[in-house]
Amino acid sequence: MGLGAVMMGLADPPANYGSISAVGLFVALMCVCIIVGHLLEENRWMNESITALFIGLGTGAVILMASSGKHSRVLVFSEDLFFIYLLPPIIFNAGFQVKKKQFFRNFMTITLFGAVGTLISFTVISLGALGLVSKLNIGELELGDYLALGAIFSATDSVCTLQVLNQDDTPFLYSLVFGEGVVNDATSVVLFNAIQSFSTGSFSGVNLLKFGGSFLYLFCTSTFLGVASGLISAYVIKKLYFGRHSTDREVAIMMLMAYLSYMIAELLDLSGILTVFFCGIVMSHYTWHNVTESSRVTTKHAFATLSFMAETFLFLYVGMDALDIEKWKIVRETPIKSIALSSTILALVLVSRAAFVFPLSLLSNWSKKTPMGKISFKQQVIIWWAGLMRGAVSIALAYNKFARSGHTQLPSNAIMITGTISVVLFSTIVFGILTKPLIRLLNPPRYLSREQSALSEPSSPKTFLERLIENGPDADLENGVSLRRPSSLRLLLASPTRSVHYYWRKFDNSFMRPVFGGRGFVPFVPGSPTESSVPLLSTTEDN
Amino acid sequence: MGLGAVMMGLADPPANYGSISAVGLFVALMCVCIIVGHLLEENRWMNESITALFIGLGTGAVILMASSGKHSRVLVFSEDLFFIYLLPPIIFNAGFQVKKKQFFRNFMTITLFGAVGTLISFTVISLGALGLVSKLNIGELELGDYLALGAIFSATDSVCTLQVLNQDDTPFLYSLVFGEGVVNDATSVVLFNAIQSFSTGSFSGVNLLKFGGSFLYLFCTSTFLGVASGLISAYVIKKLYFGRHSTDREVAIMMLMAYLSYMIAELLDLSGILTVFFCGIVMSHYTWHNVTESSRVTTKHAFATLSFMAETFLFLYVGMDALDIEKWKIVRETPIKSIALSSTILALVLVSRAAFVFPLSLLSNWSKKTPMGKISFKQQVIIWWAGLMRGAVSIALAYNKFARSGHTQLPSNAIMITGTISVVLFSTIVFGILTKPLIRLLNPPRYLSREQSALSEPSSPKTFLERLIENGPDADLENGVSLRRPSSLRLLLASPTRSVHYYWRKFDNSFMRPVFGGRGFVPFVPGSPTESSVPLLSTTEDN
Repeated sequence: MGLGAVMMGLADPPANYGSISAVGLFVALMCVCIIVGHLLEENRWMNESITALFIGLGTGAVILMASSGKHSRVLVFSEDLFFIYLLPPIIFNAGFQVKKKQFFRNFMTITLFGAVGTLISFTVISLGALGLVSKLNIGELELGDYLALGAIFSATDSVCTLQVLNQDDTPFLYSLVFGEGVVNDATSVVLFNAIQSFSTGSFSGVNLLKFGGSFLYLFCTSTFLGVASGLISAYVIKKLYFGRHSTDREVAIMMLMAYLSYMIAELLDLSGILTVFFCGIVMSHYTWHNVTESSRVTTKHAFATLSFMAETFLFLYVGMDALDIEKWKIVRETPIKSIALSSTILALVLVSRAAFVFPLSLLSNWSKKTPMGKISFKQQVIIWWAGLMRGAVSIALAYNKFARSGHTQLPSNAIMITGTISVVLFSTIVFGILTKPLIRLLNPPRYLSREQSALSEPSSPKTFLERLIENGPDADLENGVSLRRPSSLRLLLASPTRSVHYYWRKFDNSFMRPVFGGRGFVPFVPGSPTESSVPLLSTTEDN
Repeated sequence: MGLGAVMMGLADPPANYGSISAVGLFVALMCVCIIVGHLLEENRWMNESITALFIGLGTGAVILMASSGKHSRVLVFSEDLFFIYLLPPIIFNAGFQVKKKQFFRNFMTITLFGAVGTLISFTVISLGALGLVSKLNIGELELGDYLALGAIFSATDSVCTLQVLNQDDTPFLYSLVFGEGVVNDATSVVLFNAIQSFSTGSFSGVNLLKFGGSFLYLFCTSTFLGVASGLISAYVIKKLYFGRHSTDREVAIMMLMAYLSYMIAELLDLSGILTVFFCGIVMSHYTWHNVTESSRVTTKHAFATLSFMAETFLFLYVGMDALDIEKWKIVRETPIKSIALSSTILALVLVSRAAFVFPLSLLSNWSKKTPMGKISFKQQVIIWWAGLMRGAVSIALAYNKFARSGHTQLPSNAIMITGTISVVLFSTIVFGILTKPLIRLLNPPRYLSREQSALSEPSSPKTFLERLIENGPDADLENGVSLRRPSSLRLLLASPTRSVHYYWRKFDNSFMRPVFGGRGFVPFVPGSPTESSVPLLSTTEDN
């Protein structure tokens, strides 16, 4: 099922008319979402995702009534549409805009949460499902189904998290939760694929080792592919210097190379999510500095816009798909079972996340020598809470597992699909609405601390100029360790981790930047108004 | 047939793998096209379209050989993909980037060429086909088929024209040929639809009048819809001022509103091409001035990039589709007939275009009082030549007409399809390659005149600042009449057409701009670095 097949939900001939009206409806709804989202911007409960979800649900309900209860969807949920067209721009943009210093500073913790945490979560949910769901007497479920449930509900919704936490207000929490989300997406997709390919009977120690090995292999090769394609794009753009003739070519080749890295990763059965994420990071570190001034502004905002539109589309789409009447027919016959299933899964989600956030935080705190990198209990609660949302990845995986041969045929499959949708809707709406107030309660906005961090962050033009004068093009990696502390303490406290950064910087400056470009190694652009652009680009410089 | 159904050319299950490899292949080929196109930028024969066409043909040939002559396409040519996804960004961007003063100055000539010229061309080709093609004894062709041929081959390829002529070197010719191309696209699509809906037997005087009426109605309503949606976007963005919270929302809403206007036009059976073109013009006149600084840079380049990618994709796609073996089977049996058909059509295309370009140029020259707006004979030859290319619109219409029920069933249909593809390939490649040298021969680049026009155009920052000081926000419409002439002669020569511009400017300043925004009526943006951005935006200010 591809985009087009999907766009033809009302697929009577002439198909043309049906697809135009479906696409038109979605475009119109996206406009509405943007306007409503803008008006509710200051609202303390809502966020863009929930708005889109509600509008999707509302439209679904209207179509349901208009078609007198026959169908509610203009589109059928399609894995292809999700994994090929919607997810790549969202994850790429996340990598492109992520604050690299924060991300790399917390890299170990993020990997710990994202990889080990997801495995713990997967184990808890799988065992819980094996113990509890099997008692609900839903139908013939195999061991593989329970394990799949574990993988499906270990996948947090990083898209929703992005909108709930603020990168500027809570940079530390944001980088932890969001970084974890990306690694978690990748981990759960890898887990899910591994479960699908293993024959369910043979879970032995050897297979577990094999599984661990293939996971490590996937993680490394995916990362390598992403880094390599980012570097190739930097090299090609630096060598050929497209900007000489056309800005459009630069922007186009950045987009296409990033997308190509995702496609190649998927074709090689690697994790496209991880690949495109690291491609985004490398592109923002090297490629972005090799293009012309206007390409920089354009890519920064165009990638963010594409990602924003993909997110809005996604939540609309999930909302509209949720009300599809076909799926709910079987549930009407066994309402108690369905409610029991959804509640059980929700409880397991809550427990499984607690089961790794608090122990792993302790572990992470224990390994830190200084008090600054430690995760306070309040922050642990926020991390636990912010990762409770389940989203489109869960739905896509559930469809893949339970709807392969038409979801209405087996009652157990239909209940699993509706259960997944219920959990996704409930967690996104209820947990999502409560997140903003919770964060405000546990972590009240301290304007003082924000100002302090602004001083040590290179986001103000002055600091940026200062750094230029200091001739430290990679100052962001160096001073990354010292956020929220006055600059004078920087050198003192940065010393434990300094050596790694020091060697990386040395390597970056002597080998990487001369070849691949990057800040301070940009070719001379005749007529490029680099000086006048500092205020315009000041917000991008700290990424 | 939509994008997804199309993306699944190698559509064996798992569909996922097939669609990923098809999309991946196209993305990779587009990267190759961009790089090769960049390297051939200085080449005097090639242009981007021809490069993409050749790469598409080459890939098609490779796939053909790899599949041992079975199939050559990863995608089937789909009208939906073309009309829903590829054409709107190209035409919208054309409207968005068109030099408005040039376009409106030549508005009458453009409409004359685009509407009346296309009708003449249609008549000549239809009559010629009726006289000549019927002698080739191809199969049972009805009157409707000959008329459809007329409409199919009246559609010039405005996309290819865009790449052959240069807006800065030959602004007058560019605006004429390109403006004609857009109106021509719309006219031939409208003509084609009208022919499809009329019963072929009843071509009487009353029906001709009806046809003329419906054409006028379509032209006016489509233009109105485009202008209205542009104005609504300007109003909404000015009122709500999305930029306060997020640049992405502004860019997204501009994109979505433009796309929505196209969708609504298509749903109402109007000409989406005309609508989205005028929406682009209005957006660049009002909406673009209401958004933040970074949104301006982003939209300008992002729209151009999207359009560029759509064009490249399109030519790749046409190239790859052309070699599809199925279609050529029938041709093998009757090679002489096919060659005769293609040559006849090519000859008719050459004649029919000459039949309106030269007479209508005379008419246009005759109506002009001053010598400056007149079209010289050399320019007439260039206009004639630059509009000879036939492209994706012709292919899409031919598929619509002759491949509705599978193109291999009727031999006459198969021959028509292959004939269309031959004409498109031949005209794009041969005429396309000869255009650049022809223009250089007839209209040698005069660096002096370019410099002069640069002086009178507001493209240099100094002139822009001067205009700001003069407090004349609409100076581009005022001095638009005086391109290529020293400013001192401006008032003297502008007088004949001045009154219309004068009243429009007065109306625009007193009623339109206060409501819809526009240059000089932008709300105050705190922190927006308007001063520093002048050099950055200098290239956009003269559009």
